Amino acid sequence: MNIEILSIGNELLSGHTVNTNASVISQKLLSHGFAVDRVTYLPDEPALLKEGIEEAMKRSSFLITSGGLGPTGDDLTRDIIAEIYGTSLFYDEEIAADLIKRFGSNLPTLKDQAMVPKGATIIPNILGTAPGFILEGEATVMVLPGVPSQMESMLGCIVSHLEKHSLKKHAIETLYLSHLSEQEVDPYLRVLEKEYPGVQIGICPSYGVLSVYLHAEDPSILPPICDKIAEKFRTHVYSTSNKLIEVALQRWMVNNKKTLAVGESCTGGKIASTLTAHAGSSDYFLGSIVSYSNHLKESALGVSSETLETHGAVSQEVVIEMAKGVKNLTGADYVLTTSGIAGPSGGTPDKPIGTVWMAIVTPEKTFTGRLPIKHSAGKRGLVIDYSVTYLLTSLYRHLSHNIEPFS
Amino acid sequence: MNIEILSIGNELLSGHTVNTNASVISQKLLSHGFAVDRVTYLPDEPALLKEGIEEAMKRSSFLITSGGLGPTGDDLTRDIIAEIYGTSLFYDEEIAADLIKRFGSNLPTLKDQAMVPKGATIIPNILGTAPGFILEGEATVMVLPGVPSQMESMLGCIVSHLEKHSLKKHAIETLYLSHLSEQEVDPYLRVLEKEYPGVQIGICPSYGVLSVYLHAEDPSILPPICDKIAEKFRTHVYSTSNKLIEVALQRWMVNNKKTLAVGESCTGGKIASTLTAHAGSSDYFLGSIVSYSNHLKESALGVSSETLETHGAVSQEVVIEMAKGVKNLTGADYVLTTSGIAGPSGGTPDKPIGTVWMAIVTPEKTFTGRLPIKHSAGKRGLVIDYSVTYLLTSLYRHLSHNIEPFS
Repeated sequence: MNIEILSIGNELLSGHTVNTNASVISQKLLSHGFAVDRVTYLPDEPALLKEGIEEAMKRSSFLITSGGLGPTGDDLTRDIIAEIYGTSLFYDEEIAADLIKRFGSNLPTLKDQAMVPKGATIIPNILGTAPGFILEGEATVMVLPGVPSQMESMLGCIVSHLEKHSLKKHAIETLYLSHLSEQEVDPYLRVLEKEYPGVQIGICPSYGVLSVYLHAEDPSILPPICDKIAEKFRTHVYSTSNKLIEVALQRWMVNNKKTLAVGESCTGGKIASTLTAHAGSSDYFLGSIVSYSNHLKESALGVSSETLETHGAVSQEVVIEMAKGVKNLTGADYVLTTSGIAGPSGGTPDKPIGTVWMAIVTPEKTFTGRLPIKHSAGKRGLVIDYSVTYLLTSLYRHLSHNIEPFS
Repeated sequence: MNIEILSIGNELLSGHTVNTNASVISQKLLSHGFAVDRVTYLPDEPALLKEGIEEAMKRSSFLITSGGLGPTGDDLTRDIIAEIYGTSLFYDEEIAADLIKRFGSNLPTLKDQAMVPKGATIIPNILGTAPGFILEGEATVMVLPGVPSQMESMLGCIVSHLEKHSLKKHAIETLYLSHLSEQEVDPYLRVLEKEYPGVQIGICPSYGVLSVYLHAEDPSILPPICDKIAEKFRTHVYSTSNKLIEVALQRWMVNNKKTLAVGESCTGGKIASTLTAHAGSSDYFLGSIVSYSNHLKESALGVSSETLETHGAVSQEVVIEMAKGVKNLTGADYVLTTSGIAGPSGGTPDKPIGTVWMAIVTPEKTFTGRLPIKHSAGKRGLVIDYSVTYLLTSLYRHLSHNIEPFS
């Protein structure tokens, strides 16, 4: 009773579009205990698309497709699937009435988008024009549009459909850790795997954090193992539910009724946009002064021109003065600042690419430090992303475990 | 002579990691004329991994794998592939010497990471510990690590290897358009497809821009068709090489020696982080005041408390005053500002979620307007991303074609 995702579209195979849909579908299903066994990208090309779908039907009982339902000439999914299931398309008056109600009777794609396979269970598309549908047979195919928001709005129906079948459920637990390398954690996980047969433990590093996944068929086995890992790496575990450090930080700030403001140079607004991506961030986040130019460091934050000349923009002295400026403008309880060289040019022997100075100002004290050099190799985007994660995890460890930042 | 990508890792199938690697590999190969025919995600599970690789070897002549080369217990790719190719692993003294040189002789994973299959061509990993390799046989397998920066650093070797074989080359051209819907463009593309047999034209909408892909085996056929599309949608095409509007905008700003600064409320730093993701942005981008709180709108930008009280933070009046504040602090030639309701809460009947006021200040004039309502449905992230793209494309169309923003 396997589950497969078929992601359909030439833009995926050409690499022009990153496949976020497969990730969203998998996570949603897993949160209900259903594990996805395979993901395949197929092209908008009739013969290859048909072949790929038929191959998957032999392997798996449930196929979830996304993409190729739109009104344009390269959208083929609906026709091909109707052909495979030996059915035909018909103009569904109910769907048409809904489309007219929402988009008007002049909708040019009405005739196309109201066509669905006979015998299909329709999944309404409340955000767009292409309905999803489910066709049952030897294998069940669940057909979703490729537009992410529309696809996502239909996942509840997919989960409900899977719940009706006696699929094997998987128990998954996850822990997210910061300030540790894969090598520092892995040996302990292998000991646990031996101690608890039937449990698989995976580990995945990304941008300065580690995700540890525990997987078992018996859900009761997992909590004590999670407790052991959490105890072993006590000051490093920042979440058991969400990889994003900013979510843990937001919860702390809101629970403790504190405020945060930021002054950014090399991170260029990435700290602010990371924090504000989450609903409710305005409850604690006051803002960021992205003082990219030296002039703005002076005019908005009051950094002195002498400090900039003497020490350079990328210096301990400048991140301290930036923090004072941010504190003056916002009155925030906590202030973070960054100034560094993200590259690819601008490095010097004294301050190579990846040199990033940071400050964390708490009500008690000002901490400063540099991004650890091991995070600095590589590209502009890496330097920026590591800086954001390193600074946010350092603040969080300080707040929750009183660990001194940059120590 | 097909090419397939096998993306290996439970974290991909669980959806915890979005598969950016497949996209990066496909784009790199396509830029050299090699089209990827299929992408498959496989788990860190010996039997399923072996089965998936063997299936792909039957379908395709060239397999590119990424993931599962690390030193931890769930990294199986190297062993499984050696088994499939009937070879064994050996301790490669040359690789070991390089690892010791770069990471010291105490590297705990040295013994593991210096093991490679006999008969393989090694691809050096200059950024990490796990080398890549190529094994040739009925099918050729090219094995890369999963860490994105390390994987990417090895793609040159993959391209060189493919160049040695007489693979069918594909010609691809792309055009990127803004301020148009899929339905406004598609009919013309279908006319062109009929006029030029042998050319496939695909279209893909995302966050307020359209990508149009032209694909043919004969490269000489494409330029005249591209010219026709560019002529037909003259003021809409902003690039033929890069989807990112900020790259086109940066080129214009640098070529014309102009500067840009931003004041952001609901976009929360996303405009700044989008612009500064690109090397060279400091040549024109001065900074952003992310005035998320009303207090910061007053203290940093001088927005009057009366205006905030009378019209609310999400208003035409406030984005105009924010722009004046940004202009005063930075002296930028061009200023952009935003204030809106990204959701999921905070909407009112008067100002529903998705209401976003924006201003564009040029040396001649101040333009204001709202995000078109069709972009407003949906989630917080969509409202933010559409706002960024809409504002940047509106400025670019004004600069390059003198089209009035928000008209």
